[in-house]
Amino acid sequence: MGGEIQQVKCAAILVAAGSSRRMGFDKLAADLAGQPVLRRTLEAFLAAESVVEIILVGPEEREKLLGEQTFQKPLRHVAGGAERQDSVAAGLAAISEGIEWVAIHDGARPLISPADIDRCVAEASLAGAAAMARRVTETLKRADDEDYSMASVAREGLWFMETPQVFRVGLIREAYAAVRARCLVVTDEVSAVETLGKRVKLVESRLPNLKITTPADLALAEALLS
Amino acid sequence: MGGEIQQVKCAAILVAAGSSRRMGFDKLAADLAGQPVLRRTLEAFLAAESVVEIILVGPEEREKLLGEQTFQKPLRHVAGGAERQDSVAAGLAAISEGIEWVAIHDGARPLISPADIDRCVAEASLAGAAAMARRVTETLKRADDEDYSMASVAREGLWFMETPQVFRVGLIREAYAAVRARCLVVTDEVSAVETLGKRVKLVESRLPNLKITTPADLALAEALLS
Repeated sequence: MGGEIQQVKCAAILVAAGSSRRMGFDKLAADLAGQPVLRRTLEAFLAAESVVEIILVGPEEREKLLGEQTFQKPLRHVAGGAERQDSVAAGLAAISEGIEWVAIHDGARPLISPADIDRCVAEASLAGAAAMARRVTETLKRADDEDYSMASVAREGLWFMETPQVFRVGLIREAYAAVRARCLVVTDEVSAVETLGKRVKLVESRLPNLKITTPADLALAEALLS
Repeated sequence: MGGEIQQVKCAAILVAAGSSRRMGFDKLAADLAGQPVLRRTLEAFLAAESVVEIILVGPEEREKLLGEQTFQKPLRHVAGGAERQDSVAAGLAAISEGIEWVAIHDGARPLISPADIDRCVAEASLAGAAAMARRVTETLKRADDEDYSMASVAREGLWFMETPQVFRVGLIREAYAAVRARCLVVTDEVSAVETLGKRVKLVESRLPNLKITTPADLALAEALLS
């Protein structure tokens, strides 16, 4: 089985679309230890052995964040769509013939390590689908409409979803076709695949893999890198 | 009603007990921008208008973290117990006669602001019980025993519990008596009060109020303070 895993060839879709300005803060362009966040994210996928091509999805100006360089892997840019799922669909349509796997990743998760990308791809190759995630360790409550706590929510088996989320290209295309046909809105690829009744293996992050959303997140990422 | 809120007099219990060394890291003694974490936590309660006395619960050596000073509010130290709930019960037993409210707080949450403490006390005085909390914004999934995702968990109405958690002294003493009588283990005071069927008002944190557990948390707290 080890040999098979070595040969998995995976495309990566970096989602850099949608509104990137929350609180007047452009998270993908923000400087993270000397480089734009999106560039740091790209570096991880350039370094991951299983990734053979990279598709950046988002407005054209996002490409400038990558610097004017040639990269050691084919990198293409496609325009994003209105919703996140439209952007992902545009990326899926751009995958080269013959590539059977795809890793879909938030451009704003720059701390992902090449090793974790490869580990997630390897798990997907065994299970058909896999996603990075983090176990919930906090005390969770469900509240009523007036914000009064009603009961604890059992945290056993609860995970926060992260990315990359890795799938057979055919599976995720089929999932998004079903999502479109049923006019659903999904917040991540795992949710799309669940509409087909397909299970996704969760792969525990070994390192922080936070999504940069606020200046405080950026400060944390900076601290974690140093 | 405003006048009534102004007159609320509240004791504070700072929980500094239990095993403080996870990953070889003493979170309460760790330096946070020039002061031990526990000392920073204390400062917030010294500055909160509604707090009239402070009870530190934990091993005797914790007191050294506060520095050798006299404080502008009465501060007592009581030994902790085996479980967190035993420590809180020891603190509850030490509240001065005539004080009707108590705010129970994790010593390892140093970023709490005096304004948020007072806001939580004010909400408790209206509702009988209130707790600081943060709405869940992440995508959550429930997984099976083999870590395969099964379904999304609706995040509407889901909150992460924080502290302080503020109660009428009589209510929280009654709750812990019930917890002991039924040999339950609870992870926070809100859970104890829920065993009585009592609702607790959740008060949304306006500023980050993270619990220091790892060096990465400390780095984030440091970044947030600067």
